Amino acid sequence: MKRLLLASAAAVALVAQTGGAIQYAKDGTLALPKDYREWVFLSSGINMTYGAGAGNNEHPRFENVFVNPRAYAAFRKTGTWPDKTALVLEIRNSDSKVSINKDGRVQTGVAAIEIHVKDSSRGGWGFYAFRDGVQQGKPFPKTADCFTCHEQNGAVDSTFVQFYPTLIDVAKQHGTYKAGAE
Amino acid sequence: MKRLLLASAAAVALVAQTGGAIQYAKDGTLALPKDYREWVFLSSGINMTYGAGAGNNEHPRFENVFVNPRAYAAFRKTGTWPDKTALVLEIRNSDSKVSINKDGRVQTGVAAIEIHVKDSSRGGWGFYAFRDGVQQGKPFPKTADCFTCHEQNGAVDSTFVQFYPTLIDVAKQHGTYKAGAE
Repeated sequence: MKRLLLASAAAVALVAQTGGAIQYAKDGTLALPKDYREWVFLSSGINMTYGAGAGNNEHPRFENVFVNPRAYAAFRKTGTWPDKTALVLEIRNSDSKVSINKDGRVQTGVAAIEIHVKDSSRGGWGFYAFRDGVQQGKPFPKTADCFTCHEQNGAVDSTFVQFYPTLIDVAKQHGTYKAGAE
Repeated sequence: MKRLLLASAAAVALVAQTGGAIQYAKDGTLALPKDYREWVFLSSGINMTYGAGAGNNEHPRFENVFVNPRAYAAFRKTGTWPDKTALVLEIRNSDSKVSINKDGRVQTGVAAIEIHVKDSSRGGWGFYAFRDGVQQGKPFPKTADCFTCHEQNGAVDSTFVQFYPTLIDVAKQHGTYKAGAE
């Protein structure tokens, strides 16, 4: 039991130490952070759709967002994201009649992951895609729609803070919340 | 900037140090942990219903579950929960047409919080209710439905691990997953 407690403390200390560091390979791909599920959860939406047309009501997906702890702590103090912020968008399938659940939806397996990284050494914000279980994410081209959509609609520094309920007031208090982003 | 980084590191280190400690008042109420949103996120469901009848499709609610980091680390190693585990159920209202979101649901304000605590010094698992923004949660009576429902249906040690996708395989590998809990 003592050994277990020490091991647990070591695991927790590791996350604290790294604070969610990001790592690239020489080919410019981004490594999927192994511990992102221990990062800070920002929110979850279901079946969100930005374009015209309805979402997929037959197979709606959840979207969980996690941020590296060091970036979260900085946001709480300043209302904006520091360099080396990484926002992980984890898209999960859902199911309804699982165990005793009779209605509504619960989360099941991972469908895809995307990471939004702020890195001044690589030209600012970038997006990386992790599909089919790959561990190295390829960067989206700078011409991808996600760049213009985030820049035009992101409430804080091209990120969708309007969807992260615990950070909206933080940004407003620091005057970093874009007017009309709701 | 240096001061900011040090402050952030200190905040992260604090969570690591406490690992999500639980505290009671003399009257037996449980303090709402101030940092539970920095604990480990287990999953989120929407409009989940266990009884007969449909959920509230007009105003569906999300249910986020967080666990204290020390308990999470122990579960990953053993497939079960250590003493002083605290599972926070945060129930949030939802909205649809927010910002550029056209369909589906996003999370908004907190509707209620409940905490499920394993504490051998208080007779095992207990439930505490935090409504209307109270900071001290009252214990549910031992006759409440939640006790029998969790005992009968919880996949691991009276907890609903069947709804926490990253822990299902951990429990199965450790042989702690109750057969038929899906």
